[in-house]
Order: sequence, then structure tokens, then C-alpha cells
Amino acid sequence: MAEQEDKAGDQQKFVLKCPKGTRDFDPKQMAIREGVFKTITDCFKRHGAETIDTPVFELKETLMGKYGEDSKLIYDLADQGGELLSLRYDLTVPFARYIAMKKITNIKRYHIAKVYRRDNPAMTKGRYREFYQCDFDTAGAYDVMITDAEVVKIVAEILSDLELGDFVIKVNHRKFLDGMMACCGVPTEKFRTICSAIDKLDKTPWEDVRAEMVDTKGLDGAVADKIGNFVKLTGRGELIDKLLKDDSISKNEEAVQALEEMRVFFKYCELMNITNRVSFDLSLARGLDYYTGLIYEGTLTDSDGKGVGSVAGGGRYDDLVGMFDPSGKKVPCVGVSIGIERIFSIIEARKFASEEKIRTTETAVLVASAQKDLLDERMRLCSELWGAKINAEMSYKKDPKLLTQIQYAEETGIPCVAIIGEDELKKGIIKLRNTKTREEVEIKRKDFIDEVKKRCQSQA
Amino acid sequence: MAEQEDKAGDQQKFVLKCPKGTRDFDPKQMAIREGVFKTITDCFKRHGAETIDTPVFELKETLMGKYGEDSKLIYDLADQGGELLSLRYDLTVPFARYIAMKKITNIKRYHIAKVYRRDNPAMTKGRYREFYQCDFDTAGAYDVMITDAEVVKIVAEILSDLELGDFVIKVNHRKFLDGMMACCGVPTEKFRTICSAIDKLDKTPWEDVRAEMVDTKGLDGAVADKIGNFVKLTGRGELIDKLLKDDSISKNEEAVQALEEMRVFFKYCELMNITNRVSFDLSLARGLDYYTGLIYEGTLTDSDGKGVGSVAGGGRYDDLVGMFDPSGKKVPCVGVSIGIERIFSIIEARKFASEEKIRTTETAVLVASAQKDLLDERMRLCSELWGAKINAEMSYKKDPKLLTQIQYAEETGIPCVAIIGEDELKKGIIKLRNTKTREEVEIKRKDFIDEVKKRCQSQA
Repeated sequence: MAEQEDKAGDQQKFVLKCPKGTRDFDPKQMAIREGVFKTITDCFKRHGAETIDTPVFELKETLMGKYGEDSKLIYDLADQGGELLSLRYDLTVPFARYIAMKKITNIKRYHIAKVYRRDNPAMTKGRYREFYQCDFDTAGAYDVMITDAEVVKIVAEILSDLELGDFVIKVNHRKFLDGMMACCGVPTEKFRTICSAIDKLDKTPWEDVRAEMVDTKGLDGAVADKIGNFVKLTGRGELIDKLLKDDSISKNEEAVQALEEMRVFFKYCELMNITNRVSFDLSLARGLDYYTGLIYEGTLTDSDGKGVGSVAGGGRYDDLVGMFDPSGKKVPCVGVSIGIERIFSIIEARKFASEEKIRTTETAVLVASAQKDLLDERMRLCSELWGAKINAEMSYKKDPKLLTQIQYAEETGIPCVAIIGEDELKKGIIKLRNTKTREEVEIKRKDFIDEVKKRCQSQA
Repeated sequence: MAEQEDKAGDQQKFVLKCPKGTRDFDPKQMAIREGVFKTITDCFKRHGAETIDTPVFELKETLMGKYGEDSKLIYDLADQGGELLSLRYDLTVPFARYIAMKKITNIKRYHIAKVYRRDNPAMTKGRYREFYQCDFDTAGAYDVMITDAEVVKIVAEILSDLELGDFVIKVNHRKFLDGMMACCGVPTEKFRTICSAIDKLDKTPWEDVRAEMVDTKGLDGAVADKIGNFVKLTGRGELIDKLLKDDSISKNEEAVQALEEMRVFFKYCELMNITNRVSFDLSLARGLDYYTGLIYEGTLTDSDGKGVGSVAGGGRYDDLVGMFDPSGKKVPCVGVSIGIERIFSIIEARKFASEEKIRTTETAVLVASAQKDLLDERMRLCSELWGAKINAEMSYKKDPKLLTQIQYAEETGIPCVAIIGEDELKKGIIKLRNTKTREEVEIKRKDFIDEVKKRCQSQA
């Protein structure tokens, strides 16, 4: 990226760059990005979702009190007279605001859009200040775990469809976490802060997390050790059985109810053939305050099954819409956000490493000329192709060399070249060259459009 | 839209709304919007364009000095420590910054994204503070008027493809305007401000524009009257001839050169079959400072051929990239911006008036049950359909009524309903109901996926 330039003479001195933590996408990156978006959108549509859009900024007060400590990462707009505005931090809060404002009782929607966080960027790891989220959420009062299981199914489908390698979807239940903490002896007022500490276990060893609980957050060491015994547990149905037999857990109503819901969840996973992708993981806590039920995180794994990075996360949030409704009316919601930047980095690195050619256009035919003074003919033919809805290009030079034109087709992957020449014009034909095979056929002028449709469009 | 609510009890009082001048798009509006975008994108791709993306905000200094008086409409971000940022005002300046930063010498790109202007919103007229622009630009040094004419061809194709009714593309040339003003006796330092006054002629009668020139901008009355004689002229090739015969114009080198370029332009229009769509209109000036050559504006017309609203505008800007390059190196550019909000308003109003049903999902089959206790079967079948990449939905209720399920399919336009029932399960079949004809056929369980592919997917 260009840094500050001092060479300018009469030019103003300025930094030629994108704002910190943001980037441009060039055509090759866009081609990859659009491919990823299509895979994700296709999956969302496969599950019957509609799409909506909301403004990139919201009233500042709409975002206030929703993100806990992370609120400091919100971008505010300058006060230029009028409303106080902030850039959206995620798509979930605007969705909840939308539902409350339009008094919607049920909707299944996806939303793919940019969100903004004044975080410390780590661009090599795919952490940006401006980044895309791909969200799918279901709002509405339905029977237990049906929509939750479908959201997890969607994560499994997307991670499979994107061919990112092995992955696991860790699941837990906020109500079980609360019950578990109660059983261990965590005071109620410390639930959220201890939950935040647990959330760090995917990146931090237990000893450090324990130290945070005890030293920083004032938890009793014995209580922390009890938590430590739980959070190392992972499993599936058999873990549910084991936990239900635990003396303390079995007496905690909230924990038992959550485990019974987990059992229903696992049954649905079995019906939808994703059990092997899902792991009940007591160390999963998720940072955000607003979750109220099942939570999950899709994580790519290496050959040893070790997590190498979370690429999807979400959960149930039954109380968020109520925070916006003037009468506090709740609309239960469950959803997921696909973390597209990390996925995009992986696919981009793979594509560039493979030296696979990435086409950035969909041009079917390049209209070329064999001699000088044929611009008019090229323009006329291009226009005719465009009229027939065929993607066509020509050189913008008056008299380009034939070789240059053919090379352009080869470099950009245009499958066919229409060659107009003086002889051909006299004979009433146009030559059509196949870029790959280099084979050339003569086609009658009047049949040309139909032949191009047949021969070129399918390859474009 | 909901206004301030005071009823709340323990809820915080707040305004449940979108920021001024912005709006949400609901699923129906999104379906229309995506249709419009597809038409436009298809056209851009038909002409061989790639796409890029840039951040929604730029360094404040990147935008400074590019928009003249309109700079006051730029949204700034709050200074939260770090860089001073502003939301992008258009896609042209970020494009020029991108070209200079990446040292690109030629590119043909489209960019569809939101831009931000703190303008007085007039939402009924489609004027918003957050709105989409659909830009197509060609950068590179090519032979005269070839890329310019293609851009105008693109405007003609898009306005035809969108079926918006009659339209005209007004064209003029900034160098001709300058030459014409010189011939009339406008002092050089007043060119831009008089140009701004001329630009108002599409909405303001000549008398008022003349008053602005004379009273506000201190132009000599006789000079203004000379301008008045020119700006009422419109035509095509014959107007070029007439102007070249004008005593004063024919002596102005800049004007003559511009007219010769206009002649080339009209020749290319003829070759591309859009002459009848194009009008050389001396009253067209375009507001922005950075244009240097051909300028144009696509305007929808009523049955009398009178303009009812500009929906596309652009021109040549050969100096903008040089403003960003440290050594001042120029990259000639020409482009157009399609004003999608007004187009969207027109199409939306038309669709809603026609009572045409707008589908917001692409679901091919609804999986329904005829009796209770069939949730498991529905879930299993849905999962199988999803696995076969068939768009499928089911009710999220455990035991929904069959009639409710069928009505849902009818209301949302799902073409097929798969009905699972106890009898059918015993017989090893599933009923497939055609929503439109209400015809039902029994299909063997093992053939079901294939049959759905054949019968439902094409209609979805």
C-alpha cells in the first residue's frame, strides 16, 4: 500500500491510502468474494429466507447498552447538527430494531452487509475495522429447538459447501451455563463476567482463565476449580446423560431444563444428519450479553481436530427485540453470523497459491480486427452482440494489432474471438476463433449471432 | 414510521426510527431492488466490466477539494483519536484514489454501492441521505470518443432494459461550453460559476437563470443574452454544422475541436444504433467541477417528450486521477452513474399499483404434514431436499394444520407442497401438490427427490 509521498511539486502533500483497518477489493478479490457470497446466499435461500436492508448508521441510542464493554469500539459520526449517529456494529441489533419498529411477529431473513468496529486491526488474520457479516436469523415463537437446529444445519451446510476442510460446530446453552455456575457457587451478579472469562478458553489456557476469575474477578478458588472440572467436558448425548446424573446439576432446575432442550436439539441434529459435526462443549460461552439459549460457534479444525479459527457464531436471543419495543413485547430470535473475512482470506490464499486463473469478467466474445480501418465494423458487430444480450468487448484503440487483441483474449480468458478482416467482409463471413484450441471457423455474417450463442456463451 | 413513544414503563424512552433521510428495505422492496441491480449489472458485464469495492469512508482529505460548494454535504466521522474520516460522497472520487494508489493505467470497472450526502431529503421524490449509485467507468488513454460513446450506449441499454418508458440522453461537451462562454464574452474566472447557473436550466426558466447570472454573479446583461441564444439550441449532426458556421464559434479553437469530437461521437452513436436516443443539448452543463469533455444525462420523458427526471449522469474527467497522483500523472477517465433510487421508486410504484404478486423467497417446495406427530419425517425430508440443493421449507410448529401449511404455500408463492401423511408413509409414497393447479400426485419415496427437481425447481 502506498505510504506518504513527499515528492509532489505543486501537488498537495497527502497520504494516499485507505483508512486504517480498511481495504480496497480489486477485481480478482471481488470475483472470489462474489463466489463466496453466492454459496452463502444460495444456502440461505435454500432454507426459504427473505432478505432485508437497513442503513449503515443508526441513531446512537439504538446501539447503546447492547454490546457491554465492546461499546467503546463503536464508530460515531461527527455532530454536524441534527441526530447523533453511529455506524452499525453488527447486523443483529439493527434487525431487532427493524422487527420492533415494523411490529413484525415472525420473519426468516438474511442480511449480508458491512459492519464497523474500531478494533485493533490484524489484517493478516482477517481482522478489519470494516468487514462483512452474513447473517441468517429466524424471529417468531415456535416449538423448542426447531429453528435453533436449522440454524446449526445451515452453518454445517455452508462450511461444507465452501470446502474449507474439516470443522466442528461447538454448542452450549446459556441457561445451562447459568445453572452450572450456580451449582459451582458463582454469585448471580458475577454470572456475566465469569461467562466472559470462560469465553476466552478457546485462546487461553485454563490456568490463565482461572487466574482472571480468582485474581481479577474475585471468585473463590474452590468455585473456580469446580468450573474448571465442567468446562473441560465435551461430548454429545452421552454428556447430557452424564450431566443429568451429576448431583448438583440434577438439582438445578434451569440446568436440567437446558439439558432437556439440548437432548431435543441433538435429536434434530440426528434427523438432519449433522450429529458428527456438532460437539456439546461446556467451554463455549460467547462474548455477547444478549444470548438467552442455545449458542454455537463453527470452527475450522486441523488434521488433529484442533480448532484453528472460528468462522461462524450465533445463538438464541429472546429478549433483544423487547429492548426496543415500547411495551417490552418480546419476539424470540435465533440466528448466526458467518465471519466472511477469515473464510475469504483462506480461499484467496488457496486460489493464489494454486495459480488457478481467476476470471474477473464474463465476456463471451472479443470482437477483433485483422487490419486497419475496421473500427466501424467492430463497433457495429459489438452493438449487434450487445443487442442479442451477448457479453462482448472490443479494443478501444482505432487500429489495434491482431496479435495484441488475441493475447488480450487469452490473458483475460475470453473464450471466443470474432475476427473481422477485409477478405472476410468481401466474402460475407466472420472468423470465429476458439481461444483455447486456437481453432478458427468461418461463419456467415447472417448466422453469426446464433453461432456465437451456441459456441461462446456457455464457456463465458 | 414509528414516532417517539412515551408509553414505556420500565423501558427507556427513545425514538424507534431510522436516521433522517434513510430507510429500511423490506423483503418486497429488496426483491424489486435486486431485480433492478441485476438488469444493471448484466449490462455492465455485457460490456466486459470488472467490479471493485472501496471502503464506505475515506480519509477526509481524500474528499476535500473535489466537490466545490457541495462539500458541505459530506458526513464526517467523529474524531475518536486517529485519522479524520468522512463517508464517501460518490464512487468517482474513491475510484480515482484507487487508480492513483494502485498505479493503474487502464481498467473498466463497475461499482454498485451506497453513498452519503447530508442533503435535504425528499423521500417521496427518491432523494435520500443514504442511497445507491451504480457506476460504470473506463480509465485509460484511448482513441477519441470510443469509450465515451460506449458509456452512452450503456445508458441507452439500461434505460431500455428497465422498461421505464421513453427517455432521451442529453449530451454536451465541457470544452464546447467553455468555448461558447468565451465567444459570448464571459470572463474566464466566471466560467465555472456561469456553468453552474446554466446547469439549473432543466428545472428553472431562462429568465431566472439570466437573473442569477446578471444580478448575483455580475455578468453583463448583453453577455447573458448571447448565452441565452445558445442554450436553447438542441439537435444532432445538423446542429454541429450550424454551430461551426457561427462566426464567433468558428474562430474559437476549443469550441471547434469540441464540435469535431461531437461529430465523431454522433458517428459512433449511428454505428451503435442509438442516435434517436441522443440529443446535443447546449443547456446541459452538469454541476460537478471535474468534468473535462463529453457530458451526458439520461432523462425520462413524458408523452410530449418533456423531461420528467434525470436518472443517469456522467461524463469525461481526465484530470481527477492526477489530483491524487504525487507526480500529477493523469489517467483519462469517462463514466456514468445510474441514479437507482428514482428508478427504484418508479418500478416499486408500478409493481404495487399492478397488484402483481412479488415473491420474496425462492422456495421450491414446502414440506407439510397431514397429521400430528410427523415433525421428524418433515425434518428428515427437508434435510434430504437441502442435501440435493433444492430450496425447501417446513413449518416450525410441531403439529401445524394441513390447511395452514397449504395456505402458506399459496400466499408466499411456493409452487409445490410435499404432503407427508400416515397412510402415505405406510404406502411408501409422498403426495406432491401443485399449488397453482391444486393437482396432487403420489410419488414413490425413492423417486421423490428426482421428481421434485423435475416438477418444482423450474417454477421456483
